[in-house]
Amino acid sequence: MSRASFPVIGLLILLGACSVSEQPLRSPAEDPLPSWNDGPTKQAITQFVAAVTDPNGGGYVEASQRIAVFDNDGTLWAEQPLYFQLLFALDRVRAMAAEHPEWREEQPFKAILDDDREALGRMSEHDIVQIVMATHAGMTVDEFSDQVAGWLATARHPRFDQPFTQMAYQPMLELLDYLRANDFKTFIVSGGGIDFMRVFTEQVYGIPPEQVVGSVGVTRFELRDDGAVLVKEPDIEFVDDKEGKPVGINQFIGRRPIAAFGNSDGDLAMLQYTAGGDGPRLMALVHHDDSEREWTYDRDSSIGRLDRALDEARDRAWTVISIKNDWLKVFPFEN
Amino acid sequence: MSRASFPVIGLLILLGACSVSEQPLRSPAEDPLPSWNDGPTKQAITQFVAAVTDPNGGGYVEASQRIAVFDNDGTLWAEQPLYFQLLFALDRVRAMAAEHPEWREEQPFKAILDDDREALGRMSEHDIVQIVMATHAGMTVDEFSDQVAGWLATARHPRFDQPFTQMAYQPMLELLDYLRANDFKTFIVSGGGIDFMRVFTEQVYGIPPEQVVGSVGVTRFELRDDGAVLVKEPDIEFVDDKEGKPVGINQFIGRRPIAAFGNSDGDLAMLQYTAGGDGPRLMALVHHDDSEREWTYDRDSSIGRLDRALDEARDRAWTVISIKNDWLKVFPFEN
Repeated sequence: MSRASFPVIGLLILLGACSVSEQPLRSPAEDPLPSWNDGPTKQAITQFVAAVTDPNGGGYVEASQRIAVFDNDGTLWAEQPLYFQLLFALDRVRAMAAEHPEWREEQPFKAILDDDREALGRMSEHDIVQIVMATHAGMTVDEFSDQVAGWLATARHPRFDQPFTQMAYQPMLELLDYLRANDFKTFIVSGGGIDFMRVFTEQVYGIPPEQVVGSVGVTRFELRDDGAVLVKEPDIEFVDDKEGKPVGINQFIGRRPIAAFGNSDGDLAMLQYTAGGDGPRLMALVHHDDSEREWTYDRDSSIGRLDRALDEARDRAWTVISIKNDWLKVFPFEN
Repeated sequence: MSRASFPVIGLLILLGACSVSEQPLRSPAEDPLPSWNDGPTKQAITQFVAAVTDPNGGGYVEASQRIAVFDNDGTLWAEQPLYFQLLFALDRVRAMAAEHPEWREEQPFKAILDDDREALGRMSEHDIVQIVMATHAGMTVDEFSDQVAGWLATARHPRFDQPFTQMAYQPMLELLDYLRANDFKTFIVSGGGIDFMRVFTEQVYGIPPEQVVGSVGVTRFELRDDGAVLVKEPDIEFVDDKEGKPVGINQFIGRRPIAAFGNSDGDLAMLQYTAGGDGPRLMALVHHDDSEREWTYDRDSSIGRLDRALDEARDRAWTVISIKNDWLKVFPFEN
């Protein structure tokens, strides 16, 4: 697959610190989707599930074929003001600064250490790749997991002052549980780093590491005196975005999903691939249209741009989930 | 990962045809491993499983961490006189010959069509790559799956005159069931083609497509009038062999296994990686030492060479499974 790099995005850094992470709440109620407003969107979901699980209906799908795929950033948890993995990378640069005195004079690291927001706002794609490579390579996979776990346990979201694991969407947590209760197997298919996501997906979403598909860095097998390890190298193996998503689905899962949830043009090919099979299908996009409880962005956003996919959703009658209208609650910590 | 090619192997073609595939037998008996001779090998397996499942013992492993990985060729099913996937490729060349009149005069295809065993025996690595590329690319993933399914339903093994799906090892089928009954999640980690294996692994081994790790060909996403498809391209994306096996395990599964089964030097890194974690571990090699019921080969074989891994197994007291001594029955079709 092509070797590519992270998209250029305007940087905005406002990060706080220190507190212990909590598990997002799961609603046990009789309605399996209590945070969803009753209306056509919720109905589209429940009618689809009813159709594929009714053994006497024409749309029945065997349990083994009930594969549902979810984008992560902007679909299962928030992605503003910046992809959380990039916030992690910036914090790692600060944490590693003592071992890298040269960063005091070297961009893009100097801008991060000086908290120079003007310089950070001008960062190029090359700068971002440098930051990711400096913070996501040169350690074993196990050491990297420990670093991510430590960060998730202490870092807090700049706007909501909550642990990032609390920034998952309550309605989507209910949806994951609801699909699994109906014998779906739920997978993440995200452009995010696979080693980063696997640290928290089981705890936060109930999705085990082996059901996470993401972008992959090169790793190298190494035999050490105290055992065999995999070392993360500063090179990208596979970018799980856009046309890479159906490729990743086939490579990691090996079946065509019957349901797919995304929120951006990066998810369009995944939804098209899902739509391309026979029988009932559910293709859905989360539309960020609630500035008050979350954020509003779509066609002009550098993060999570939703433009072509929104047009196609309207042309093909895919489900568009309005955060403002379809979700009674956005985050687990809301009262 | 590096782009590589199939190993050079001496070709030997004796293929028959025509019959319907049958499901390998599963033994329901009270002893979960009835085809295993009582002895130290069987004991090593059952003691390991007892240790990791005893919540009061020091070796307890949570169910979610009970990951067991299996090589396929020579470990779960036979691999002589030639990897079955290559026998499939040779049959495909014969089936496709009418659409490729140029093959009548072009090597290595001419040798296959003429059944010229002398020329086939001299085939180079380049020849074999040409055969694989000609037969594993240029169609959608779904079309390829249909071709494999059709072949498995009709082709028969040249020595045993059985469908290839009957060439799975009965003791290993019992072992897979036994591990799953003890809440292990079983994965295949094989150098074989992932799209090829996924056609039969659920039916034969009870291992679903999403738990199959293998070598991956490049695929290309394509939007057609009748829907989105993935097209197989004549290029290799990832070779899941030797040091590629732990890399593939981390990429696809994301956890370090606690049990690993192989049969060749291609499995050594996977066993070393499995051994490198804490707590109880089971590393095992199937040793092909039974010419009468199966085949005898190890250090000098071009297929499934077992040399360095056999030394390391002896040095590190890994489990060596003797087909001759440890298995009461080899194939499901034996009486």
